[in-house]
Amino acid sequence: MRISMHTMTVDAFVPMLEGLRKILDKAGQHASAKKFDFAVLAQARLSPDMFGLLKQVQLSCDFAKNSTARLAGQEPPRFEDTEQTLDELKTRIARTIDYLRGVRADALEGAEDRDIKIPLPNNQTLEMKGLAFLRGWALPNFYFHLVTAYDILRHNGVEIGKRDYLNA
Amino acid sequence: MRISMHTMTVDAFVPMLEGLRKILDKAGQHASAKKFDFAVLAQARLSPDMFGLLKQVQLSCDFAKNSTARLAGQEPPRFEDTEQTLDELKTRIARTIDYLRGVRADALEGAEDRDIKIPLPNNQTLEMKGLAFLRGWALPNFYFHLVTAYDILRHNGVEIGKRDYLNA
Repeated sequence: MRISMHTMTVDAFVPMLEGLRKILDKAGQHASAKKFDFAVLAQARLSPDMFGLLKQVQLSCDFAKNSTARLAGQEPPRFEDTEQTLDELKTRIARTIDYLRGVRADALEGAEDRDIKIPLPNNQTLEMKGLAFLRGWALPNFYFHLVTAYDILRHNGVEIGKRDYLNA
Repeated sequence: MRISMHTMTVDAFVPMLEGLRKILDKAGQHASAKKFDFAVLAQARLSPDMFGLLKQVQLSCDFAKNSTARLAGQEPPRFEDTEQTLDELKTRIARTIDYLRGVRADALEGAEDRDIKIPLPNNQTLEMKGLAFLRGWALPNFYFHLVTAYDILRHNGVEIGKRDYLNA
């Protein structure tokens, strides 16, 4: 037996996104306790030329949703990037999880050999097979934005730990 | 065809660790250009109760090495955590990559069903099957420390980008 592309996408992304939702709840509680607006955290960033928390959460969702859709040969649902509040961010995560849970395992059968084309901002296109895409693009990008969201909150004093991140 | 545990461990970890080595080189160049000691970056952290860069690099190596060894039913090589300099950190990464490259694909055949026991600091033991361990422990922990190492350096002004992280 080997392992399926479905388990390395849907089953990998969903629990981590559920963890992110709980982490954001703790961030909201932290803001309330300290009597500042969650919007301050939403705009927080680790460097002036890095994305803030809000965009990191949006991108965590997008890499999970769009990568799985590409591998399944589906058109991913498009989300307008209009979220501002904690509730709106949590809704985006919930919609992402709903989409992922709806991707049937058989849609991802053979996805490791699928030709994947990734449009890059500079009008270039990255082409690779599904397996290389999963291993070297989908997972590393997903974790990049998820961990950076976590790091932004830790840097800003929110009391979360790796247990929250792992959602274990 | 499905995908192998070998490709989701060895082939996933090695390029990202090679990227980390290049990122550390850029950190070293940044320190030289700004005329400060790399040791300052090695101790940098995002929060007083988070590990600094040095430990994040050590743990990135350890999660790659120890997770792969557990899945292969091998005893991982033990590294003394004595690194202080840039060269020592790069050597640790190189030794980790050497170990990973030496793990034969057939040692990981069937690893998805292997019973994995993870000793936790509090004398508890986490038990799970190989697939759950890979998906919910090995990869998330590896990326946690790798991305946090990257975030620490970005936060401290080192000029790196996601392309360096992806090592694409």
